[in-house]
Amino acid sequence: MSNFLNTLRTRHAVKNFDFSKKVLNENIEIIKESIRLSPSSYNLMPCRVIDVQDKGVRRKLKAASYNQGQITEASHLFVFCSLNTLSQDYIQKINHIREDIEGKEKDFYKGYVEFLQAIVGGKSKDDIMHWNAKQTYIALGFAMMACASLSIDSCPIEGFDAEKYSQILKLADKGLTPNVVLAVGYAQDEENLHRSPKVRLDTSDFFLDI
Amino acid sequence: MSNFLNTLRTRHAVKNFDFSKKVLNENIEIIKESIRLSPSSYNLMPCRVIDVQDKGVRRKLKAASYNQGQITEASHLFVFCSLNTLSQDYIQKINHIREDIEGKEKDFYKGYVEFLQAIVGGKSKDDIMHWNAKQTYIALGFAMMACASLSIDSCPIEGFDAEKYSQILKLADKGLTPNVVLAVGYAQDEENLHRSPKVRLDTSDFFLDI
Repeated sequence: MSNFLNTLRTRHAVKNFDFSKKVLNENIEIIKESIRLSPSSYNLMPCRVIDVQDKGVRRKLKAASYNQGQITEASHLFVFCSLNTLSQDYIQKINHIREDIEGKEKDFYKGYVEFLQAIVGGKSKDDIMHWNAKQTYIALGFAMMACASLSIDSCPIEGFDAEKYSQILKLADKGLTPNVVLAVGYAQDEENLHRSPKVRLDTSDFFLDI
Repeated sequence: MSNFLNTLRTRHAVKNFDFSKKVLNENIEIIKESIRLSPSSYNLMPCRVIDVQDKGVRRKLKAASYNQGQITEASHLFVFCSLNTLSQDYIQKINHIREDIEGKEKDFYKGYVEFLQAIVGGKSKDDIMHWNAKQTYIALGFAMMACASLSIDSCPIEGFDAEKYSQILKLADKGLTPNVVLAVGYAQDEENLHRSPKVRLDTSDFFLDI
């Protein structure tokens, strides 16, 4: 298990990616699968991820991200988005998928669906946006961990213009809001040679026993 | 690496913990360390975790969590909180810790501190609360993954009365808001025997290639 902690201790937010080093497709599939498997509240799965491969689009996103080099230099770029709404139909759809996977008859979860619809229906649009965004950050964490476990570097990026991202990626049409970006690839050798030690609060500052 | 995905595929949100099975301290330390090592925006580390061991407090929290059994039945209970504010002093403190760990002279990062203080100072109190909460969910994801990698079960819980939690745990005094709870332990054998298959959207619904 020290392997697990070693993985966490060595991961860091990469500043300079080596543009020439590409992540193998089979590893990208593992990273994507770890995102897909990430849990969410009531399993409503409000996270969606844009895998931006088009170089022209990447250049536009870079301009909308304070020109951070990682946006175009990383092997892969994932834009983590969340659903703007959780409609009553969507809640029903998710549970129909559940009934299908579990081999239950249709509407087996009707009562549960109504319970969920009432909970979600009682939330404001803003509350739903924030709630969905938080679930997306669980998926982000899983993706970073998947990268680290594959010895692939990554860099989470919140510094971008969400409105410009929405325009470039046509996210409003898709009912999505961009939350956070994960650039994935391999750091330049130069960066690896001059890594600073990880900075964290002491355990006693982070945890409180009651 | 299929190990990594297998870990993700077998983890699930436990409903019924076996009260008699306790997680070893050495494993709790690994889970805590994975939380401590989780990344956050600008490394401002706004997450704090309450490790609730007192049985009386656990019973009170259960009453404030719609009587969900996991709150008292799980071996361990972590309440993930986030800082209510990011004061100018706090930002400076974090960077003094950084200077110390990196062996730099004091105020080496003065310019960066001023940059951060300006960014944070420009955010509303609500924005900071939501921003901090999202970082906390990265830590939650890391903790769930640490549990899974140790074959320890867990259950994330958002269904609780945040105001009552604040009162019971005296969180306002500590400048903290409770975001999400992670119950950690071992599922009852009965639950393990009757596990439903994991329900997720298809990859094509989750990802969009551009």
